[in-house]
Amino acid sequence: HSRQFEVGVLDWFARLWEIEKNDYWGYITNCGTEGNLHGILVGREVFPDGILYASRESHYSVFKAARMYRMECVKVDTLISGEIDCADFRAKLLANKSKPAIINVNIGTTVKGAVDDLDLVIQTLEGCGFSRDRFYIHCDGALFGLMMPFVKRAPKVSFKKPIGSVSVSGHKFVGCPMPCGVQITRMEHVNALSSNVEYLASRDATIMGSRNGHAPIFLWYTLNRKGYNGFAKEVQKCLRNAHYLKDQLRAAGIGAMLNELSSTVVFERPRDEDFVRRWQLACEGNIAHVVVMPSVSIEKLDVFLNELVKNRSTWYQEKQPPCIAADIGKENCACPLHK
Amino acid sequence: HSRQFEVGVLDWFARLWEIEKNDYWGYITNCGTEGNLHGILVGREVFPDGILYASRESHYSVFKAARMYRMECVKVDTLISGEIDCADFRAKLLANKSKPAIINVNIGTTVKGAVDDLDLVIQTLEGCGFSRDRFYIHCDGALFGLMMPFVKRAPKVSFKKPIGSVSVSGHKFVGCPMPCGVQITRMEHVNALSSNVEYLASRDATIMGSRNGHAPIFLWYTLNRKGYNGFAKEVQKCLRNAHYLKDQLRAAGIGAMLNELSSTVVFERPRDEDFVRRWQLACEGNIAHVVVMPSVSIEKLDVFLNELVKNRSTWYQEKQPPCIAADIGKENCACPLHK
Repeated sequence: HSRQFEVGVLDWFARLWEIEKNDYWGYITNCGTEGNLHGILVGREVFPDGILYASRESHYSVFKAARMYRMECVKVDTLISGEIDCADFRAKLLANKSKPAIINVNIGTTVKGAVDDLDLVIQTLEGCGFSRDRFYIHCDGALFGLMMPFVKRAPKVSFKKPIGSVSVSGHKFVGCPMPCGVQITRMEHVNALSSNVEYLASRDATIMGSRNGHAPIFLWYTLNRKGYNGFAKEVQKCLRNAHYLKDQLRAAGIGAMLNELSSTVVFERPRDEDFVRRWQLACEGNIAHVVVMPSVSIEKLDVFLNELVKNRSTWYQEKQPPCIAADIGKENCACPLHK
Repeated sequence: HSRQFEVGVLDWFARLWEIEKNDYWGYITNCGTEGNLHGILVGREVFPDGILYASRESHYSVFKAARMYRMECVKVDTLISGEIDCADFRAKLLANKSKPAIINVNIGTTVKGAVDDLDLVIQTLEGCGFSRDRFYIHCDGALFGLMMPFVKRAPKVSFKKPIGSVSVSGHKFVGCPMPCGVQITRMEHVNALSSNVEYLASRDATIMGSRNGHAPIFLWYTLNRKGYNGFAKEVQKCLRNAHYLKDQLRAAGIGAMLNELSSTVVFERPRDEDFVRRWQLACEGNIAHVVVMPSVSIEKLDVFLNELVKNRSTWYQEKQPPCIAADIGKENCACPLHK
């Protein structure tokens, strides 16, 4: 088995997210979804009648969890940036004051890479009269949970704040060759969840029971090879390259948005499905996105940009490009009305 | 991606379990537990107020699922063999006639390798007045789901019978180097479960969302390299070697049991925890088990037997070995009273 590597990886993340070795419990999951399923289940076990609040731009696994776990779920509106709208959150909390709150906070939404303002979420909860023993926060850090700590001006994800769990994917920024993730929660919470499973001579508090033994080795190796400074450099490179992509798109007259703490560039959905497939672009409605990871170089971005601009000139010979102001804000839209 | 391999593996299992290509839906899971979580969730979505019935020797993931999904769960007694006790099942069904039944049927229990009698379970349901639109059967074939089809006298797991889903592990008998499994259900059921997830351009009906891309390749390779006949031979070898182990244990005066359709040998728990750890024996109460897989040769069994017999002679110099008749039946017990 590779348990010592798993513990090493977890300790690394516990330090990153500021929780003492004896106070945390965690494991290497099979993917980001398992982290969300786990965090939300821990929240439900802590507050069996709690209501799950999540912004509508949360990952679909959050809503899947609500359905699986038979939890009441309230969708909260988002700002144009993709962040949770705390005014709407406040209104919905006040309408449900009688029940504890379980909140999914996005550290990087799937589509726009938006980072919910954790501090404002906590302030909103407390402002609505939810004391710390009446709410549970799960931070879905699928992608940016690992990048954010290396961005100086980013709000901090830390167990010094009243959060219950954080999860992050291991096959994205860290580049593990199989889907995996890291899930960390407080020891006090997990005791509610685990049950004795004698034949394994251990208490199972995971979702999946079985774990991939290779994943911790890959994670451990990468964390140690790159180190804290290596990650910091890669994060800077990703953010720089993402800015380059956004600027070049805008310079070519294409609507594009990049959130401040993000390396996810959102832009006008290409009209050619072959182009979308070839570049494996994830699309939603009128927008597509590119997540700029360490493997994406300026050269690769240039190839992409050239191909996009060349193809696009044939898509809009007779008609106008669509307005995507509703998706990315009118200051980012390049349609005839807003450009 | 490795989707074509995944489809190839699923088609192989669909043929094995007798369901037409267009009638089934399935995927390669991350482990046996994910198969159970999926099968039971499908059952719950088909019968939202259904009661989950499972024998008390079912895998713990079944009871974990009941808790996660907030389902009413009724534990059914077992026979000494580890099989579900259909007399008790009948009594419990009759006591809950007003609600549909969701049943976990074990094709090889975790500890004793017992195979629930699927035909008798169906008969019992129908005998209690549960028509086919009032029950859902999930077959947990973690280990033996793949071995059973190759045992001539074994009752058949088949979608020609009124079952809803079957799952099997891929890292046990097939020997895939990472935890994985196969889950197959009826297309008609899964439509209830799936929901549109636009940004992936697909409908997600899995538990985990992400899947390991290597697992289907390993599975496909092994299925094709060994083929149906190769598996049949390996199953015969495992059953033969398991009989050898059981016979040698009994010959050495050690209580031991082997179910007819199984390669899991259950015997008196060794008294030395170092011995247990070194041989990675799974123990429960007074019993331990050895699951005889294709990698376990007669030579390896002899090394194990010699070491066990030699060590055991030092454990019981002054006291008698324990009676394990309650676990494995008095005909299999070798304590002073029963030998």
